[in-house]
Amino acid sequence: MIKSSLIEPDGGTLVDLIVPESQRYSKMTEIESMAKVNLTRIDMEWVHVISEGWASPLRGFMRESEYLQSLHFNCLRMEDGSVVNMSLPIVLAIDDETKGRIGSSLHVALVGPLGDCVAILRSIEIYKHHNKEERIARTWGTTAPGLPYVDEVITPSGDWLIGGDLEVLKPIKYSDGLDNYRLSPKQLRKEFESRKADAVFAFQLRNPVHNGHALLMNDTRKRLLEMGYKNPILLLHPLGGFTKADDVPLDVRMEQHSKVLEDGVLDPETTIVAIFPSPMHYAGPTEVQWHAKARINAGANFYIVGRDPAGMAHPTEKRDLYDPDHGKKVLTMAPGLHKLNILPFKVAAYDNRENKMAFFDPSRAKDFLFISGTKMRAYAKNGENPPNGFMCPSGWKVLVEYYQSSQAQEASQ
Amino acid sequence: MIKSSLIEPDGGTLVDLIVPESQRYSKMTEIESMAKVNLTRIDMEWVHVISEGWASPLRGFMRESEYLQSLHFNCLRMEDGSVVNMSLPIVLAIDDETKGRIGSSLHVALVGPLGDCVAILRSIEIYKHHNKEERIARTWGTTAPGLPYVDEVITPSGDWLIGGDLEVLKPIKYSDGLDNYRLSPKQLRKEFESRKADAVFAFQLRNPVHNGHALLMNDTRKRLLEMGYKNPILLLHPLGGFTKADDVPLDVRMEQHSKVLEDGVLDPETTIVAIFPSPMHYAGPTEVQWHAKARINAGANFYIVGRDPAGMAHPTEKRDLYDPDHGKKVLTMAPGLHKLNILPFKVAAYDNRENKMAFFDPSRAKDFLFISGTKMRAYAKNGENPPNGFMCPSGWKVLVEYYQSSQAQEASQ
Repeated sequence: MIKSSLIEPDGGTLVDLIVPESQRYSKMTEIESMAKVNLTRIDMEWVHVISEGWASPLRGFMRESEYLQSLHFNCLRMEDGSVVNMSLPIVLAIDDETKGRIGSSLHVALVGPLGDCVAILRSIEIYKHHNKEERIARTWGTTAPGLPYVDEVITPSGDWLIGGDLEVLKPIKYSDGLDNYRLSPKQLRKEFESRKADAVFAFQLRNPVHNGHALLMNDTRKRLLEMGYKNPILLLHPLGGFTKADDVPLDVRMEQHSKVLEDGVLDPETTIVAIFPSPMHYAGPTEVQWHAKARINAGANFYIVGRDPAGMAHPTEKRDLYDPDHGKKVLTMAPGLHKLNILPFKVAAYDNRENKMAFFDPSRAKDFLFISGTKMRAYAKNGENPPNGFMCPSGWKVLVEYYQSSQAQEASQ
Repeated sequence: MIKSSLIEPDGGTLVDLIVPESQRYSKMTEIESMAKVNLTRIDMEWVHVISEGWASPLRGFMRESEYLQSLHFNCLRMEDGSVVNMSLPIVLAIDDETKGRIGSSLHVALVGPLGDCVAILRSIEIYKHHNKEERIARTWGTTAPGLPYVDEVITPSGDWLIGGDLEVLKPIKYSDGLDNYRLSPKQLRKEFESRKADAVFAFQLRNPVHNGHALLMNDTRKRLLEMGYKNPILLLHPLGGFTKADDVPLDVRMEQHSKVLEDGVLDPETTIVAIFPSPMHYAGPTEVQWHAKARINAGANFYIVGRDPAGMAHPTEKRDLYDPDHGKKVLTMAPGLHKLNILPFKVAAYDNRENKMAFFDPSRAKDFLFISGTKMRAYAKNGENPPNGFMCPSGWKVLVEYYQSSQAQEASQ
C-alpha cells in the first residue's frame, strides 16, 4: 500500500551505475589500458549525480542527440515514445589534446582530481562544443558575462563533448564530514518507506533556513494533512554541489539546518535532511525543472516552488535575470513533469506588527519587511541582529560565526 | 483513398479565422467602439499566417502560457495531453501608451499599416515583453547585434505582448501581382486532392532555384516513386514574408521560379509553386521546425531539409551562426513533428568534370565547386556567368537583370 504511494522514477527504473564490488577488480584491470580523461571537481559532481540515478533514465554523460534535445526541448524522447524532462545539458567537455589521445577508442577511463580512476565511459561519442555561446544562450537566456557556472565550467572547458555510458567504480565520497547526509535516491526511497510516508514534499534550497521557509514547509504539511494524507514527510534538500562564491558554504548551511531542527522550528520526526549533490547553474526556469525532476527520481511527489527559483540578479544589468514568476509557470508546463504535484507558495515576509515571519498580506503591505538573501548576509557580516523571529537564534549564531571568522581570515591575509 | 494520404493538420482541424462574409458587417460595427492596436507590416504577415491556419491549432497571437512553452520547449501541450510543435513565439508587441489605451478592455481591434481595421483580438491577455534579451537568446541561441528579425521587429517593439483569439475580417491580400500564388493551407490541400497526390513533399526556400536544388527535388520524386507512391507532388514553397535586405526580393524570385518551370527543369505537371506567407527569422534549428510544422498543416507529409536550414553567417564572428548539421538533427527529434517524414538531402555542387550540378562525391572532392548564395549573388552583380549548367539560362537572366537594374538605381541616387 505505502510503496505504491511513492512516485515511480523517470523511465520506470532508477538508474544505478555503481559497479558491484565483486566486479571492481576486473574493471580496474580493464581500465589500465584505456585512454584517460581528467575530471574537474564539478565533473565529479556530475559523475556522482548520474551514478546514483538523479538524472534517470540518463545512463551517462549526454551524447549529441541527448544534448541537442536538452538544449532545444528541455526533454528527451525515449525509445518507447515517452518523454522525460531533461532541462540542463549534463555533459563532459574535453580539449583537443585529450580528443587526440582518445583517438578511435571505444571506451575511456575517467580520472578524478586526485589522480584516481573513478569510472569508465563506454561506447563513447565525441562531438563539437565549439559553439559555447549557443549552449549558454539557450540554457540561461542570456550571454552576459558573469554567470557563475559559465565562468567556472563552460568558458574554460574544451571544444569537444564526450558522451557515453557510465560505470562508476565505487560510490562517490567527499570525506568532508557530510557524507552521511548524501543519501542517494535509492536510500531516500528506502527511508521514506521505512517512515511509512504516504506523501513526500521536497524543498530545494541553497540558503540558510529562516522562519519564513519554515512557515511554508509547516504550512505545506498542514495542507497535505487536510488533503487526506496521513504521514507527509518533508525532504529538506539543500544543494551540495558548486555554488557561487558569495553563497553560504555547504558545511555552514548544514550546521544551520541542524540547529533549525534541534530548535524544533521543523519537526525532526517528519523531516529528512539530505544533500542534493548537483552543482548549481543559476539558470532560473530552466534549472528549476532539473531540481524538480531529480526529486521525482528520489521519490518526492510534491515539489515546493517559490519566487524566482534558481534565479539571481542579472550579472550586468540592475534587474533580476528572470521574471520571478516564470519559474513556477514553466515548471507547471514542463514536459515530463506532470506526475509531480507542483506547490507554488505564498510569499513570506517579516510582519512588523506581529514580530514574526508571516505570509505577506497585501492589504497591509507596509507592515511587511522583505529580507533578501543579500540583506540577511549583510546583517550577519556586520554582526547585526535581524528582527526578532526572523530565524531561530542558534541557527543565526552559526551564520554570524561563519561571517566573523571569514572576515577575520580576510583581515589576516 | 487519396484523401487519407494527406497528413492531418496539427490538432486535427485546420484553423480558419477569417470571418464569413455574412458576419463582416456586424463585426465592423462592433469594432468601432474597440480600442485600436496598430500593426506593422510584419505583424500583418503574422495575422495572415495565423488566420489561414499555418500555425494550427494556434487561434491567435500567443498568450503567456503559449509564449513560455514556445520559448522553453518549442512545443505546446494541448488540453487532451497531445503535443504540437511551436518553435517560434508568434506574438504581438504593444507599447506602454497602447497598453494604457486598452485599459481593461476584453477585446481590441487590430489596425493595418494603411489604417484599416483588419481583425479583432478577443479575450486578450497582456503580459511582459521586458526581457527581450531572454526571448532573443532562447530563440536564436545568441544575442549578438545584427540579427535581421531582431533589428527589424524585436528591438523597436513595445514592452508588452498582447495575446488573444483572432478574427480576421477578410482574407489578407498584398495586391502586388503575386496574390494568386498565396494559397492557404486549405487551398493547397484542395489542390493536392484534385491532383490526386498520394505524397506531398515540401521544399522551403528563400533563394533562386539552381540546378542543384532541382536535382535533389527530382531525385526526391524518384525516391518516392521507388517507395511505391504513384503520384508524388512537389510543393515548391518560397517564403514570402520579411527577409533580410541582401536576400533576393520575392517578386524576382517568383519570376525566376516561373522560368525554371517553363524551362522544364522542374515538371509543372507534378509541381505546385505557392508562397509561404511567414516572415523569416534566420533562427536555424529553431526556425526549421516552424517551416516544417506549417507544411504539415498544408498537407505535406515529406519535408526536404538540407545543410544549415534557416541559417546565416554569425553577425559578428567569422563562422556560421549554427552547426550546419544541427537543423536536420533537431528536426528529426522535435516534439510534435514525428508524423512528418524528414528527408535529409545529399549536398549538390558543381561538378567540373561533368559540367553540371551533381551530388557531391567525396572520393573526387577536388572536381566539385561549391557555389554559395553569396557567390551566386556576386556573379549576378558583376554580370559574370556562373559555370554552364548551374542554373537554367532564362532563370539566370532574371537575376542578372534584377542586380543590374538595382545597381543602376543605386548609381542614379
